[in-house]
Amino acid sequence: MTDVKPFALPVRVYYEDTDAQGVVYYANYFRFMERARTEWLRSLGIDMVKLQDEERRIFVVAEVQAKFHAPARLSDDLVVTAGLQDLTRVSFDIEQKIYRDSTDGDLLISGIVKAAYLDADSMRPKRVPPSFFGDNQS
Amino acid sequence: MTDVKPFALPVRVYYEDTDAQGVVYYANYFRFMERARTEWLRSLGIDMVKLQDEERRIFVVAEVQAKFHAPARLSDDLVVTAGLQDLTRVSFDIEQKIYRDSTDGDLLISGIVKAAYLDADSMRPKRVPPSFFGDNQS
Amino acid sequence: MTDVKPFALPVRVYYEDTDAQGVVYYANYFRFMERARTEWLRSLGIDMVKLQDEERRIFVVAEVQAKFHAPARLSDDLVVTAGLQDLTRVSFDIEQKIYRDSTDGDLLISGIVKAAYLDADSMRPKRVPPSFFGDNQS
Amino acid sequence: MTDVKPFALPVRVYYEDTDAQGVVYYANYFRFMERARTEWLRSLGIDMVKLQDEERRIFVVAEVQAKFHAPARLSDDLVVTAGLQDLTRVSFDIEQKIYRDSTDGDLLISGIVKAAYLDADSMRPKRVPPSFFGDNQS
Repeated sequence: MTDVKPFALPVRVYYEDTDAQGVVYYANYFRFMERARTEWLRSLGIDMVKLQDEERRIFVVAEVQAKFHAPARLSDDLVVTAGLQDLTRVSFDIEQKIYRDSTDGDLLISGIVKAAYLDADSMRPKRVPPSFFGDNQS
Repeated sequence: MTDVKPFALPVRVYYEDTDAQGVVYYANYFRFMERARTEWLRSLGIDMVKLQDEERRIFVVAEVQAKFHAPARLSDDLVVTAGLQDLTRVSFDIEQKIYRDSTDGDLLISGIVKAAYLDADSMRPKRVPPSFFGDNQS
Repeated sequence: MTDVKPFALPVRVYYEDTDAQGVVYYANYFRFMERARTEWLRSLGIDMVKLQDEERRIFVVAEVQAKFHAPARLSDDLVVTAGLQDLTRVSFDIEQKIYRDSTDGDLLISGIVKAAYLDADSMRPKRVPPSFFGDNQS
Repeated sequence: MTDVKPFALPVRVYYEDTDAQGVVYYANYFRFMERARTEWLRSLGIDMVKLQDEERRIFVVAEVQAKFHAPARLSDDLVVTAGLQDLTRVSFDIEQKIYRDSTDGDLLISGIVKAAYLDADSMRPKRVPPSFFGDNQS
């Protein structure tokens, strides 16, 4: 949809993230991805606390696909990206990748996360404000 | 306060609980302890969801002390206990222990958790209903 | 591949599993799924600790797909299933579902997890022993 | 032991850290504390991966005490400190505090973590190298 460079968040691996195989526990990569999504939305001016408290809107993950190419290890410095891949009226697909050291480093994980935009009270889908992702959707 | 046998919950260790040292990550023992506290309260007839939703009361952890005597490992079958140690008007101390295999097995962790009873809206301390812990407090 | 009933593990939702949206945090469903996979393998006679320590073989997640149909909440009693969907020489696909209350209850999550079978030292793919999943693969 | 300013690590609160009470789940503060301890040791030139792999030495938590004064919430910017409080031959006590916004902000958590220094193979206590914490111990 766009060839701008995706948003990238550095994440360091701590003991809490690893498991007895000596690598990052698979579910924890989804925590890293959520941190990157949150910071990416923040960089676009979207504050999720304000959104939930004042506008009663929340994002929820509707679907994920991920491939685990290679494991991350204790003390690794990762880079986690998030970028808009597709946008519908009520949801959007976010492409996310996790690299070691930098986006030029080893690709460890690649995934797609479909996020839905919901009314926080009724939990019904709501239209994603077109302003969220700027002009590159038009 | 009482010499009845404490409530005991079996907990099995999965990869999610371990870290790259090959043992359970220290913070995760507190997750196990909370599971045991919850089931102990449930065994006393206290439903935390109903308490929060209907009576607007919550328990929060005010203080913890824990000693880590020996580590738990992947696939270990643990037993986590919870029992009332002390009770004041607005808080109570829960003694918690984690054993391998059974309460006759190796003692891995011993701790005390002070829980406060709060109004869920004002977050102010509320009197713990004396009925919670039965007759053995009187 | 088989129409036998899938393996099913009961899982109760505790505070540790939930997030500030009041529901189970999305990454934590993958923890539940791993518990069910582990117990399913155990029910087939596969002990992952022995496998890792004695035979130097491990399972790693190579790929996941999951759809989040409806959220689980605090104190929910879930049932998490695991069943073999497909088997190749070096990996297998596990179908996993999470229901509320029972496999007749609301379907909350459905997913496919591709697990690879690796040498724990070289991290290279190894042939899945055909005996693992019994006669229903032949 | 010293009146130098303690090491301080900024930590932002994400959904993964919170629970259905809308605040950070109590066990997760210990994850934050471990991140700060790790970065503090790194700032002293101690690389835990090298220590474990090359010298077969590990730190393990032997004891914790923590008081939870006030809760952290989603999107809070925390500061987590770590500083040496006491040092014996085979263990050391680390004072840790968690503040909102800055070390001049609200004090949310205060704790003491006793870490033991062990041989990674025998799991027996080893003497903490006096060089670890510089001259301020003498």
